[in-house]
Amino acid sequence: MTYCLGVKVNEGLLFASDSRTNAGVDSVATFHKLFVFHQPGERLIVVMTAGNLAVTQEVITRLQQGLTADDPGRNVLLARSVFDATFMVGGLLRSVIDRDRAYVQAFGADVSSSFMVGGQIAGDEPRLFLVYPAGNFIESEPATPYFQLGETKYGKPILERVLTPQTRLADVAKCALLSFDGTIRANLSVAPPIDVLIYQAGSLSIGRQQEIKDGDPYFAGLCSAWSDGILGLFANLPDPPWTAGDAPATRAPE
Amino acid sequence: MTYCLGVKVNEGLLFASDSRTNAGVDSVATFHKLFVFHQPGERLIVVMTAGNLAVTQEVITRLQQGLTADDPGRNVLLARSVFDATFMVGGLLRSVIDRDRAYVQAFGADVSSSFMVGGQIAGDEPRLFLVYPAGNFIESEPATPYFQLGETKYGKPILERVLTPQTRLADVAKCALLSFDGTIRANLSVAPPIDVLIYQAGSLSIGRQQEIKDGDPYFAGLCSAWSDGILGLFANLPDPPWTAGDAPATRAPE
Repeated sequence: MTYCLGVKVNEGLLFASDSRTNAGVDSVATFHKLFVFHQPGERLIVVMTAGNLAVTQEVITRLQQGLTADDPGRNVLLARSVFDATFMVGGLLRSVIDRDRAYVQAFGADVSSSFMVGGQIAGDEPRLFLVYPAGNFIESEPATPYFQLGETKYGKPILERVLTPQTRLADVAKCALLSFDGTIRANLSVAPPIDVLIYQAGSLSIGRQQEIKDGDPYFAGLCSAWSDGILGLFANLPDPPWTAGDAPATRAPE
Repeated sequence: MTYCLGVKVNEGLLFASDSRTNAGVDSVATFHKLFVFHQPGERLIVVMTAGNLAVTQEVITRLQQGLTADDPGRNVLLARSVFDATFMVGGLLRSVIDRDRAYVQAFGADVSSSFMVGGQIAGDEPRLFLVYPAGNFIESEPATPYFQLGETKYGKPILERVLTPQTRLADVAKCALLSFDGTIRANLSVAPPIDVLIYQAGSLSIGRQQEIKDGDPYFAGLCSAWSDGILGLFANLPDPPWTAGDAPATRAPE
């Protein structure tokens, strides 16, 4: 299983993915399950992948092979918008699964794959898209400032509580790490290192790219402080009034 | 979708279920999706249901019909152990789906149903079981002091953080309500009222049975204090060191 998170706020974008499998292949810029297509000052496009690895690798490889093409419909670095780049990813996904689905399903396996595509091209705003396994896609809007791929549920409550378009990127990063912490605690198939890319709107440059390894001091301290804080908060909330007297008489005073 | 939670701690048991659908039918003691079979001083057995409503209703009805039988294999009030009562539920589930599966699947629908069975019979310890859709089942043990049915993921992280066999029943109830709060916030198909039954080990009586309705003052205050506390805790955690400088110069001082 994979967990990928993309967030779009007024200040910019955040991309984060786990990397339990490190089977990524690329020749442009790979960060485990997070792939970067970048022309400084002109465009930054990030693609994150989840699902059938043979399918996602082929889609990424074909995107990379397209970088030498003159056709803006085939070269993500010539695409006129992040929407067009996402359309390209959806089309490549469809061509791969049209060809492979019957062969893969014959073995009881699943071709399902999904993608997140986000970034900014000079002259346009930052944008963030989620590509479904069917190859169609949706764009984030202020009421839904984030998308997730893979093991999405455990890490969702903190995102719902914290994220708004006004959230600072530093808080988005902190929130993203806590979302990963919750997911990693609940699902053994999601694990560090966590790859994080922070994009400052308008910069048209990579900004911060960080690999959070197991034992990373900031991440460990954050998770520990969070856990302690949650337990302290919990302990200070009042008991349900209808449980009074349920505890045995020997219980310790609080 | 349903959300049911069963917890076994040293102090006793907690059962909680949402009740978006109130289609329960019984003649013994029904509390929405939570059914109670009780002989004061002798035994308390609670059954919670999730899945195909026609299937779960028939299982519950057949359990109720069995209450007049002399056979400990058919009458849950004569069952020699909570294990035997659970075996009875699994067997009834199998007989219903053996008969109905083909008819239901012909309409593209799903017979899948699952159950939780817990309680105490005089002379034995409190016990808690989870019945799979296949009718087989597992028992909780101290390392896994809770089971969930239905929409399980959103509400799991708080359970993982808080619950141990030593947790007080009042804290179990508080934790359960926060787990429901997280699930209700994330999934529109899970909603109050929440039915809660708290069983004190050794009492062989119902203890507390509480219906938490929408707008319940304690529940609303708990969720609000929790939400405020989480946001305050979040705000006080340090930013990732690698995000320093990402915020615009105009950001407000903290």
